[in-house]
Amino acid sequence: MGEKTKIMIIICDGMGDRPIAELGNRTPLEAAETPRMDMLALRGETCIVDIIAPGVRPGSDTAHLALCGYDPYEYYTGRGPFEALGVGMDVRPGDVALRLNFSTVEERDGALVVLDRRAGRITEGTDELAAAVDDMEIEGARLYVKESTAHRAALVIRGVGLGHEVRDVDPHEVGVPIWKAEGVGEANEKTAKIINEFVKRSYEIFKEHPVNATRVEDGERPANVLLPRGVGLAPHIPPFGERYGLKGAAAVEVGLIRGIAKYLELDVIELPPSVTGGLDSDFDALFAAALSVFDGYDFLLINAKGPDVAGHDDDPVAKVEAIERIDVALEPVVEKVATGVHLALLADHSTPCVVGDHSGDPVPCLFYGPGVRTDDTATFGERTCAYGGAGRIRGQDALPILLQLSERAEKLGA
Amino acid sequence: MGEKTKIMIIICDGMGDRPIAELGNRTPLEAAETPRMDMLALRGETCIVDIIAPGVRPGSDTAHLALCGYDPYEYYTGRGPFEALGVGMDVRPGDVALRLNFSTVEERDGALVVLDRRAGRITEGTDELAAAVDDMEIEGARLYVKESTAHRAALVIRGVGLGHEVRDVDPHEVGVPIWKAEGVGEANEKTAKIINEFVKRSYEIFKEHPVNATRVEDGERPANVLLPRGVGLAPHIPPFGERYGLKGAAAVEVGLIRGIAKYLELDVIELPPSVTGGLDSDFDALFAAALSVFDGYDFLLINAKGPDVAGHDDDPVAKVEAIERIDVALEPVVEKVATGVHLALLADHSTPCVVGDHSGDPVPCLFYGPGVRTDDTATFGERTCAYGGAGRIRGQDALPILLQLSERAEKLGA
Repeated sequence: MGEKTKIMIIICDGMGDRPIAELGNRTPLEAAETPRMDMLALRGETCIVDIIAPGVRPGSDTAHLALCGYDPYEYYTGRGPFEALGVGMDVRPGDVALRLNFSTVEERDGALVVLDRRAGRITEGTDELAAAVDDMEIEGARLYVKESTAHRAALVIRGVGLGHEVRDVDPHEVGVPIWKAEGVGEANEKTAKIINEFVKRSYEIFKEHPVNATRVEDGERPANVLLPRGVGLAPHIPPFGERYGLKGAAAVEVGLIRGIAKYLELDVIELPPSVTGGLDSDFDALFAAALSVFDGYDFLLINAKGPDVAGHDDDPVAKVEAIERIDVALEPVVEKVATGVHLALLADHSTPCVVGDHSGDPVPCLFYGPGVRTDDTATFGERTCAYGGAGRIRGQDALPILLQLSERAEKLGA
Repeated sequence: MGEKTKIMIIICDGMGDRPIAELGNRTPLEAAETPRMDMLALRGETCIVDIIAPGVRPGSDTAHLALCGYDPYEYYTGRGPFEALGVGMDVRPGDVALRLNFSTVEERDGALVVLDRRAGRITEGTDELAAAVDDMEIEGARLYVKESTAHRAALVIRGVGLGHEVRDVDPHEVGVPIWKAEGVGEANEKTAKIINEFVKRSYEIFKEHPVNATRVEDGERPANVLLPRGVGLAPHIPPFGERYGLKGAAAVEVGLIRGIAKYLELDVIELPPSVTGGLDSDFDALFAAALSVFDGYDFLLINAKGPDVAGHDDDPVAKVEAIERIDVALEPVVEKVATGVHLALLADHSTPCVVGDHSGDPVPCLFYGPGVRTDDTATFGERTCAYGGAGRIRGQDALPILLQLSERAEKLGA
């Protein structure tokens, strides 16, 4: 066996797309000038990747689990826990977690009727409101609340004997009363009771809250309740370092993926404020921060969010620009990996502009590094990689392939 | 349905490799002159194969299980049974088997402390020592011991009510006392008791043994104990003939694969002494022996070991030569399969010279015979086959593909 090499995975978030008429029936990646990615593809081996399985639309959370080698069907247990991780909450295996909306309700005949599920798309004051209901005790369990972007927040319930098969409280429409959380069996009943009491207390506390007094004065809808949905049990996940024997770190731009990295016990690299997670993000600073610590690690995961944002915005030109800016910023990475690093560069999913959301289209991928069986693909794109030497693989295959290239895989048998 | 055809799988052991600078960035197979394999690829359909799964490094045992259509994750139950099979022992479903090291221990305060786990890398006299402890009875079970290469041996325990979840006795380091085998529950306790008694008896018998008297006189460490590890239960595997309705035989060069063939109840074809399993092996004689019995069988598995040996030795030139010698020896096989046999020719794993061991790189594969959908691949190599018409498959897929081509597959449904 030779020397163990380092492993790097670079994820251009949502970069995969479909042919777009205004780009001459090219995808944004095909239309973009990407000399560095093309060089890596030329000197590497390419393929297309079904991140979860053919036709399955990955979330950012399930995609990153798969690319870290974890079966999302085994480890993804609902959005709540991953949303809570995404806003930086402390989530522990066994916690029950939910997504929350700041909403506007009105009392009618003793029921709370939903007027606006997003409380007039509130953007300010949610931190104060969240603080007012954070760290309560109900039925012997501790409840933690933290605001997310806009009208969103997350709830973590920590206690013993909690179930997670509970109906949503958020009725997902307006003009109707909120639902009661309900569950079957002692553990689910307990969680349901806690959730219902939490919703009641949030209403009592919020209706008198100064943030809402101000909102009403300004002619805006009060955020006078928190409506939970997406309940999930925080899963017991074997930490990345234990599972693979790799010291790993992550340089990622957005909260949800940072949360997943933390949950896998990857070290989360501090990024400067210029790395925004938006289209204006400073990719040079992102890669510089990642490379500055790489000497101390065996494994590095980098996520550049820009292409996904443009895909959600249905902005092909912005997507081309984001991809080109990433390519320019890759220069020091290209120099680094040329020293003998094993690299995979790919997307975590397609976010086709025409869809405006994640799709199930496979993503292009390149493997680069010592011993890779170079193929005939000379430019990096969805359709050039479809003819690549590594064929069509799954997201969960990427890390094992890198591990065996880097002399870190165990043999099964003799 | 047409007439049933015969099936042949030819395994060029460890033939897959990576591009090698001294071969002009070609793999040994790409660099080798292989007109017969190229012709079969030209007239056949090609692909690359992940013998177990992408990135997973196969052992010879798990690889051959997979290529015979058995899921290695289901049927591979630890190294002990396969090691015992490999040295030619009679292993039966339900036996508990372990790997053994001839080791050197010293009595200190009533404990046996390990001085050398390999007894001075003993190479001679292990047959006599093994014979001295072979065929004992302990706790109503029969114990069989056989020497392997160098300091290695294997132990088979045959009896009723035996568990296999037992801690190793070999502490895997020197200067410490040997461990006690321990297990939880009646069956595991029984096996542990048998193992501990076996270790004690081996020490009593070996410390007075003439082989060791001679070793001590010569200033060498005595092989005065056998230390077990790698306990496994010999699995209940459905015999190949029953599973597929095929009368099958195997012409294979090395003990471990011969053992697997026997375990699957394939007839093991007697080979002349010139078929050595080494780089000097007589491949003409190997294929001649296989073809001479083929009329009596539906299925024939042939393994030519040479390329794997050269890969382990990091000798690209020897690997090219071994592949070329196999290609020349294939002449009568080419004539035979042209009569209407369905053939798969592939490797059981890659053994890249630079790695010097099995790797997780996929292997090239060709299917040949009536009705095969010929593709554009005209030469047989890792990267030409990556562009083959059959794409990227798994080792376990090969036999079902051959079965359906040969009109032997059952339909699922109506």
